Amino acid sequence: MSTSLIEEKIRQLAQLDSTGMYLDDFLLTWDRTDDEIAAVYKVVEILMELRKNNISPKVFDSGLAVSLFRDNSTRTRFSFSSAANLLGLTVQDLDEGKSQIAHGETVRETANMVSFMADVIGIRDDMYIGKGNAYMREVAASVEQGYKAGILEQRPTLVNLQCDIDHPTQSMADAMHLIQHFGGLENLKGKKIAMSWAYSPSYGKPLSVPQGIIGLMTRFGMDVTLAHPEGYEVMPEVEAVARRNAEASGGSFTKTGSMAEAFKDADIVYPKSWAPFNAMEKRTVLYGDNDMDGIKSLEQELLAQNANFKDWECTEELMALTKEKSALYMHCLPADITGVSCEQGEVAASVFDRYRDPLYFEASYKPYVIAAMMMMAKFENPAEKLTQILQRNKQRIF
Amino acid sequence: MSTSLIEEKIRQLAQLDSTGMYLDDFLLTWDRTDDEIAAVYKVVEILMELRKNNISPKVFDSGLAVSLFRDNSTRTRFSFSSAANLLGLTVQDLDEGKSQIAHGETVRETANMVSFMADVIGIRDDMYIGKGNAYMREVAASVEQGYKAGILEQRPTLVNLQCDIDHPTQSMADAMHLIQHFGGLENLKGKKIAMSWAYSPSYGKPLSVPQGIIGLMTRFGMDVTLAHPEGYEVMPEVEAVARRNAEASGGSFTKTGSMAEAFKDADIVYPKSWAPFNAMEKRTVLYGDNDMDGIKSLEQELLAQNANFKDWECTEELMALTKEKSALYMHCLPADITGVSCEQGEVAASVFDRYRDPLYFEASYKPYVIAAMMMMAKFENPAEKLTQILQRNKQRIF
Amino acid sequence: MSTSLIEEKIRQLAQLDSTGMYLDDFLLTWDRTDDEIAAVYKVVEILMELRKNNISPKVFDSGLAVSLFRDNSTRTRFSFSSAANLLGLTVQDLDEGKSQIAHGETVRETANMVSFMADVIGIRDDMYIGKGNAYMREVAASVEQGYKAGILEQRPTLVNLQCDIDHPTQSMADAMHLIQHFGGLENLKGKKIAMSWAYSPSYGKPLSVPQGIIGLMTRFGMDVTLAHPEGYEVMPEVEAVARRNAEASGGSFTKTGSMAEAFKDADIVYPKSWAPFNAMEKRTVLYGDNDMDGIKSLEQELLAQNANFKDWECTEELMALTKEKSALYMHCLPADITGVSCEQGEVAASVFDRYRDPLYFEASYKPYVIAAMMMMAKFENPAEKLTQILQRNKQRIF
Repeated sequence: MSTSLIEEKIRQLAQLDSTGMYLDDFLLTWDRTDDEIAAVYKVVEILMELRKNNISPKVFDSGLAVSLFRDNSTRTRFSFSSAANLLGLTVQDLDEGKSQIAHGETVRETANMVSFMADVIGIRDDMYIGKGNAYMREVAASVEQGYKAGILEQRPTLVNLQCDIDHPTQSMADAMHLIQHFGGLENLKGKKIAMSWAYSPSYGKPLSVPQGIIGLMTRFGMDVTLAHPEGYEVMPEVEAVARRNAEASGGSFTKTGSMAEAFKDADIVYPKSWAPFNAMEKRTVLYGDNDMDGIKSLEQELLAQNANFKDWECTEELMALTKEKSALYMHCLPADITGVSCEQGEVAASVFDRYRDPLYFEASYKPYVIAAMMMMAKFENPAEKLTQILQRNKQRIF
Repeated sequence: MSTSLIEEKIRQLAQLDSTGMYLDDFLLTWDRTDDEIAAVYKVVEILMELRKNNISPKVFDSGLAVSLFRDNSTRTRFSFSSAANLLGLTVQDLDEGKSQIAHGETVRETANMVSFMADVIGIRDDMYIGKGNAYMREVAASVEQGYKAGILEQRPTLVNLQCDIDHPTQSMADAMHLIQHFGGLENLKGKKIAMSWAYSPSYGKPLSVPQGIIGLMTRFGMDVTLAHPEGYEVMPEVEAVARRNAEASGGSFTKTGSMAEAFKDADIVYPKSWAPFNAMEKRTVLYGDNDMDGIKSLEQELLAQNANFKDWECTEELMALTKEKSALYMHCLPADITGVSCEQGEVAASVFDRYRDPLYFEASYKPYVIAAMMMMAKFENPAEKLTQILQRNKQRIF
Repeated sequence: MSTSLIEEKIRQLAQLDSTGMYLDDFLLTWDRTDDEIAAVYKVVEILMELRKNNISPKVFDSGLAVSLFRDNSTRTRFSFSSAANLLGLTVQDLDEGKSQIAHGETVRETANMVSFMADVIGIRDDMYIGKGNAYMREVAASVEQGYKAGILEQRPTLVNLQCDIDHPTQSMADAMHLIQHFGGLENLKGKKIAMSWAYSPSYGKPLSVPQGIIGLMTRFGMDVTLAHPEGYEVMPEVEAVARRNAEASGGSFTKTGSMAEAFKDADIVYPKSWAPFNAMEKRTVLYGDNDMDGIKSLEQELLAQNANFKDWECTEELMALTKEKSALYMHCLPADITGVSCEQGEVAASVFDRYRDPLYFEASYKPYVIAAMMMMAKFENPAEKLTQILQRNKQRIF
């Protein structure tokens, strides 16, 4: 019986100041203080222990969790759905195809119309540079205004399920994986992580994962190396965040044009394809102009550009360069696996196979991360609320 | 703490005879007695107060709320979903695209097949004159038969989420808005409301809103003026309802061909586009015959006809004619706003902007109206049930 | 008050050994022991009585029921949704169109990704011979592996909602209908059931229903006759199962090429169209090769073949051959009704109409059958759990 472990973790949580998350949104990890980030992990650990002990953390007897996915998604959709369900919220999809949003409704109007009984809004909008995060802030401002005007009985919390800048539920789950793997947040200090571009035969993968990783991991005193071929730069603003974080945390943020250099002595490697930032900006303009020919030719250009870097693959040879030849391999999934899901891709099949279980563990934290974000926006004192949940001792399965 | 206010409202509710709604459907407001209509508002007020006091009115531990939307919808979908969720029901969409309905199933069969554990069925079917309400009655008769035969363990209640004749959840929410705005149902007596046609660049908006408004507001002793250009008549049967209601309530029902005349001294204005009834009838026949060329030419005809009445716009000049120049502007949303969502539309941007908050409030009552309809169909004595809910004192948020 | 009836049924349930279903999947009825099959019916009866007595059997405070429908479905979708809801699970559709499954994810990965908080997975995959059941077993093995590795906190149970081989939730609901109709499982012994092919103007109906029926009904000591024209054979493996079952149960399994012979003295008739097994195999290969021309020509061939057997219709004349001219007519619905849903079909309108209520009852057991399967996979001792549910005495409707 591990409720004493839960009580211990709640005591640790109570030491952290997370009041800034109360009634606020979770849009970028670098909007949040170190205490808030650490508190999210503590809540994640507590929620996991509660579930293992068959104690239900349901805090909502009713309420909607609105989801808006502007891009296909399986794992994030299920993570959001699982988190909402765990806490007692019901997911209602805002399907722009089925709705009247396309017919001239303003963001402000729609945001209020769907929120009369919504406690959470989750949005994935990662397709266009300069648009996704901005849209989320517009929705957040809209429901804030509606709440202040008394139109909304409660203030729905926005959770960024992936935007053009950050993918906080992914990077936070990734970091949770590292915390579990290395036995504590404090053990991440001094570890080297290689966030590396990798070749993929597909086109236009979002930048939010590498940006999210360098924007978050630099906070923990880690040595973060970003590797990519020339022309695959990420947003300069996010690099600036990474540099500031590294300085403050006593870690480092380095860039290199060589995958091998990045992998050298790395404790963790995260090889993944993404599209060049500049090309994504160009694409956003082309879509705005509805220039389909332009998009097609840009796509051809980018595929040709990609093809120059087929050797950016996470092979056994590269893995052998890492710390004790056994760095932890990470990926947000699905990966492009050479000889499995494509002819040539991001990672060799033998490497991927060896890390299959860790990769699934990595993904498994996302529902808990989202649930923690929801709870901390709803309760000013999460330690107190979790103590009450523990004392209530409601069974998840009767 | 306002539970004494809730108790007072429950006492008022107990004075009203709403037993006719028990185990019955909500298809047209004029099917319901004055007491029943008044009781719905009282239940709405009580549900709102309960929620404000964090008291959960969840009455279903399980059960489905089946939804069938034959037309796109955001706000009605979310309102239905919110209402079902508030009371403990889970929405299950009956998606005719995904299901086998199109493949020769009779209405009776499908209605029973989806209802084995359904407590509520919500239908939106407003596209074809003579079809929507008739379809709802067929579904209602089907589940009634199934219930009586013992096939269904419970009798699902039908809620009309918009048909060809009425839009009761909209008109009831609109009236709730007036009750809140004017401080009580009794204060609506003698108020003038202008339900006016307005120009829209789009085509074929349903008649159910103007029909719902004149069919409901005439019950409260209001002076209801229906204004539209020649050729934009609504269903004569509904005008007859409005006349009868006005006579019974001591109000009036007037028609005019001038927007200005309608607005003169009005306490409330509701300018909104709709399609001519005759054209909608013609369209229904054309769809029945699958005559797509006929539909296209009808559409051109109607757009040309609309274009003759571009001056039917709710401008500041027209607003200045209203009572103290400050009538309450209403709309079911989304509105066609001149210079915002279209070049020229139903309402001037400055008018719409000034009423944005009231418009959002107007929309906010719909989830509660639907929840009240559900509750009153399920419980013979809603006052008693609400007293039990109050005494149970279950928290919506733990 | 029938709780004493419930207690009696729980005592009967406790006599049956159903521990083999604990933490296991329900993929084929012939994977399960006689005790397990009998226990499912007992749980169904208890769940029905609980609901009639307004006692909620909700056992999950949270948890997902993942649904994957690779074919359109109304009744199975609603049955699954009703069952999940009754027990407290929330359905989350895995929509392959919306998700990234099509983009190279392996079954194992997706199965784990959607299961972090899933207690049940329901799959309908009946289109391709040799594929559906195999896919289900792959998913089951994947989540088993994830559970054993500690990735999944719980082992989701797979429920086969129709595959290429069996349709266990249908055949079990059908048998439940017979149990209710004939007053007990023991009364099925010696009854003759005619599972007969029937003409339909449509093409390619799955084999899972006739296969499910002969694979299940032969267990109860019934005389099962399978009738079809030459060329409409079912899978030989399932015929072998039926023969073995009949031998063990003291019943019989006979084949005939004459509908009249099958109907003669039958207590129950189940006339239904299906596609030839060989043609379905051929179609699977053609789809695998993406040979659309081949599929079209196969379709024409099959429709022409079907047209040779238009006299395979369940008419009044054929019904007159049955036991006391009043065999129980069964169908999984929707049926092709002559002169109603098609010019000529599986059954005469007068026959179908006479059995409408029984057909709806037949369908009504499916939600309970699915709920029973879910419960028995989750609780090692369902009798004990149902006793606790009875004692808890939680109201379904407050």
